Amino acid sequence: MLSKNQIKLIKSLHQKKYRTKNSLFVVEGVKGVNEFLNSHFTLEKLFCTENFSNELDRNFIEVISSMELKKISNLNSPNEVLGVFKIPEPKKMNPEIFSLVLDEVNDPGNLGTIIRLCDWFGIEQLICSENTVDCYNFKVVQSTMGSLSRVSIIYSDIKQFIKSSNLPIYAAMMNGENVYRKSLPGKGILVMGNEANGISPEVSELITNKITIPKFGEKQLTESLNVATATAILLSEFKRN
Amino acid sequence: MLSKNQIKLIKSLHQKKYRTKNSLFVVEGVKGVNEFLNSHFTLEKLFCTENFSNELDRNFIEVISSMELKKISNLNSPNEVLGVFKIPEPKKMNPEIFSLVLDEVNDPGNLGTIIRLCDWFGIEQLICSENTVDCYNFKVVQSTMGSLSRVSIIYSDIKQFIKSSNLPIYAAMMNGENVYRKSLPGKGILVMGNEANGISPEVSELITNKITIPKFGEKQLTESLNVATATAILLSEFKRN
Repeated sequence: MLSKNQIKLIKSLHQKKYRTKNSLFVVEGVKGVNEFLNSHFTLEKLFCTENFSNELDRNFIEVISSMELKKISNLNSPNEVLGVFKIPEPKKMNPEIFSLVLDEVNDPGNLGTIIRLCDWFGIEQLICSENTVDCYNFKVVQSTMGSLSRVSIIYSDIKQFIKSSNLPIYAAMMNGENVYRKSLPGKGILVMGNEANGISPEVSELITNKITIPKFGEKQLTESLNVATATAILLSEFKRN
Repeated sequence: MLSKNQIKLIKSLHQKKYRTKNSLFVVEGVKGVNEFLNSHFTLEKLFCTENFSNELDRNFIEVISSMELKKISNLNSPNEVLGVFKIPEPKKMNPEIFSLVLDEVNDPGNLGTIIRLCDWFGIEQLICSENTVDCYNFKVVQSTMGSLSRVSIIYSDIKQFIKSSNLPIYAAMMNGENVYRKSLPGKGILVMGNEANGISPEVSELITNKITIPKFGEKQLTESLNVATATAILLSEFKRN
């Protein structure tokens, strides 16, 4: 039986403020929860219906009814289990390995897609500006399908990080060099900007290599690629060689 | 002043059945509507508040109040104008030009992203299976930001289309050849499959070149790339040379 305080805590975790305060976040559904259980993340508590099979220590589990699960779930059709996990201490940043840097990416769907791309392309570090959407946001967690448990994500002052690195700093910008004609290094830093405004002026100043995905076709009216699709193409360019 | 019948018609256009029956679809917002006004699409009727400036024939315009716009809008914050446009007759398919073929892509967001990619990469033809989400679906229209007005999209029996072509047929599939090691032709057909199930068995049989975007990193647990990001990477590979 769920206590009022448990319900209150779980619901509060949909706000970043309370996630930060409690160092906890929520994962829902059998598949997602199992991916986090099999990762380096630490379980705080699992709320599940009788159907959910697992071999966890009883102290970590609370068997609840479907009705109770509905009360704490953020899904229209809750799926057997809701896990509350600890937000890990961020790793130390390493300015000398290949890194993707996000400058105020706002959309949870875009961040989720980018985290899956980092997992696919084996990107060791994802550095997010403090004003990038929180990676423990429920929509991000659910859309990354476990990739979140495998990618090292650090929120930090990205200007400081860039300044501390000796690697070339690449960014997708208008009027950059055609990325298909550049020979890209195995190590570097790739910066991607905000959905509406691109890369902020202060960060722009630190870019050493401006690159562009060229437009094809006659009309040339498309304004821009979505940040997640542009990231897909550029990570592919860095990794293809 | 809007009539009851006008309201009923506009609202009905959120269902594919009524879009097909009336050969009409809805675009909302100043930017989107202007892109369609400046395209080959034919306007049926424009419903706008006094703020919307335009030089259209009065017969095509109905000035309405913000309250009325709210009644017919599908947006939380309606933006000055709602346009009803005619669905054009589909162009004739050409099996001998570079084409992207979609085999049951279901998510409107994914189709929207793919249409923007086609616009960016100058893909001349987008052929969708009959069970692919409708490109005049409101979410698709709003997410394509005008690209829809520039890409030629045809819904058809994709098996027949593929069979009628003499070009090599590429598809993103598990266990295909590493796309980075293939030399890709300027002309070909690229098939992308459903979000959950990939390419259907009947279409698989027609593929002449199975290609794969290789995974990097040690863990190799990421299950798949989203269909829109995989399309981004593969169109980039075809066009980069």
